[in-house]
Amino acid sequence: MNVAESRTAIQGSAQDKPSFRTEVLVRFADCDPAGIVFYPRFLEMFNNLVEDWCRDGLKFSFDEIVIKRGWGLPTVHLEADFIAPCRLGEVLTADLFVRSMGTSSINADILLSGPDKSERVRGKVVLVLTDRSSGRAIALPGDLRISIATFVVSG
Amino acid sequence: MNVAESRTAIQGSAQDKPSFRTEVLVRFADCDPAGIVFYPRFLEMFNNLVEDWCRDGLKFSFDEIVIKRGWGLPTVHLEADFIAPCRLGEVLTADLFVRSMGTSSINADILLSGPDKSERVRGKVVLVLTDRSSGRAIALPGDLRISIATFVVSG
Amino acid sequence: MNVAESRTAIQGSAQDKPSFRTEVLVRFADCDPAGIVFYPRFLEMFNNLVEDWCRDGLKFSFDEIVIKRGWGLPTVHLEADFIAPCRLGEVLTADLFVRSMGTSSINADILLSGPDKSERVRGKVVLVLTDRSSGRAIALPGDLRISIATFVVSG
Amino acid sequence: MNVAESRTAIQGSAQDKPSFRTEVLVRFADCDPAGIVFYPRFLEMFNNLVEDWCRDGLKFSFDEIVIKRGWGLPTVHLEADFIAPCRLGEVLTADLFVRSMGTSSINADILLSGPDKSERVRGKVVLVLTDRSSGRAIALPGDLRISIATFVVSG
Repeated sequence: MNVAESRTAIQGSAQDKPSFRTEVLVRFADCDPAGIVFYPRFLEMFNNLVEDWCRDGLKFSFDEIVIKRGWGLPTVHLEADFIAPCRLGEVLTADLFVRSMGTSSINADILLSGPDKSERVRGKVVLVLTDRSSGRAIALPGDLRISIATFVVSG
Repeated sequence: MNVAESRTAIQGSAQDKPSFRTEVLVRFADCDPAGIVFYPRFLEMFNNLVEDWCRDGLKFSFDEIVIKRGWGLPTVHLEADFIAPCRLGEVLTADLFVRSMGTSSINADILLSGPDKSERVRGKVVLVLTDRSSGRAIALPGDLRISIATFVVSG
Repeated sequence: MNVAESRTAIQGSAQDKPSFRTEVLVRFADCDPAGIVFYPRFLEMFNNLVEDWCRDGLKFSFDEIVIKRGWGLPTVHLEADFIAPCRLGEVLTADLFVRSMGTSSINADILLSGPDKSERVRGKVVLVLTDRSSGRAIALPGDLRISIATFVVSG
Repeated sequence: MNVAESRTAIQGSAQDKPSFRTEVLVRFADCDPAGIVFYPRFLEMFNNLVEDWCRDGLKFSFDEIVIKRGWGLPTVHLEADFIAPCRLGEVLTADLFVRSMGTSSINADILLSGPDKSERVRGKVVLVLTDRSSGRAIALPGDLRISIATFVVSG
């Protein structure tokens, strides 16, 4: 899928589809000498959003995944368009939409919007459930698939 | 360009083309509870590589760009494939190849490799030179274009 | 003041004195390969607490201080005792108590507690209001002193 | 020991005593909207210095300590004086001096200096060797004590 298509898809889903949503305050710690968010911190915001979604949306916390089960949910692919800068003190809206599920993988779109609803960062992540001892992908458990399915958008 | 094409292009350029190269130690600060690099830290490594390239490869440091001139060189687009995990204490090789230049923009490929030469992270970044007071793109100065051109690879 | 004295003082103030309080979720991004908070991230939590206090407690946001006025509120001295580790997913309570004010400086105690009220990190910070263009300390404005005074604890 | 005493001690040791020394480039990623190092990043520099000292000075890497042995070397106490700001592009000198050893603990002084030799950050850390499975302190092994002893300064 090219970038233009993914933009349309995300815009469509933002308006009429289920998503997992949080708010993110742009902190001093996030900002660089240009006075705007240092872009690696946007990816930390992406990871925090996935973490919150797993815990609150899927009832399958990183603590459960990583510490208790010895699994992992690494990001294996990432795309991001940094559309407009974000400034100290702004409260962003972060939305996560599931685009599709594979046997072990989750394709999700992420959208960070400003207080004025303008798009700031648009991203795509592919997550894969893995067994950390073997380093191999493992199938998403059935009950987890059912939870994830409630966040899937078509487009 | 799809992911498969970009992989081919990066692999080709890694073997027979000029690049800007640094080494990156994987530090305790970079690693997560799974014992591997936390992926937003890879993007910090990307940014450090661009910073080193500007200073040492182009003689146009971030200090000069951001502080002295009031300009910026934000990343406006990013893609990354996290191919294999990186572990505490490993020394990675980081390579930057310029794919193309626009009036104000630089398209670069980034490759992080392990001590065994295996590919760990493959990325693409699009950087744009901007005037921070107006927030608008500005043309890459002529002498800078000449410097950048020495890092351009065909594919 | 030695460490034993400061501990007593903080404990006393925690029980019967005014403080500024927030909650802090221990995120995956905060944790190291030992599965606990990487200690520089505790200092980021300290800075976030000061930032929240300035914005919500004093109505004098970092955005106002740093961006709009060209001032700064750097931490010039720091002490911290890391009493017990904090783990992924825990929600910490963060308290800030003002110990004293100087002409330009604020002495504050910080306490991070676990979900079970146990002390995890105890800290002291000295902040100084500065004019960034001259790099010199400036007197805390009168209305700000009045706001700060409401958070001062004796002990 | 009060702050004035510790300053004298560190200054003395800097001139005529053994230390472990590295260089630290102040990166864009380290700097805040005020254009200077964000202070939690100084503590990351402290941790990096301890990490380099363990690996290169003591031949006892964090990878060996944390991953292979299941131990930890957490910082349990920290003090820092932020004497003067550090700016983007500066190359700092980082020195570590061991002040004393206990059964399980190491008391070290840290000094970050600017390119002009001026003091920028002075710190003290107390590290404790622990067994992560029990969470308890363990005695520093004999051969490690011998290595550490070569970095001990009197004063």
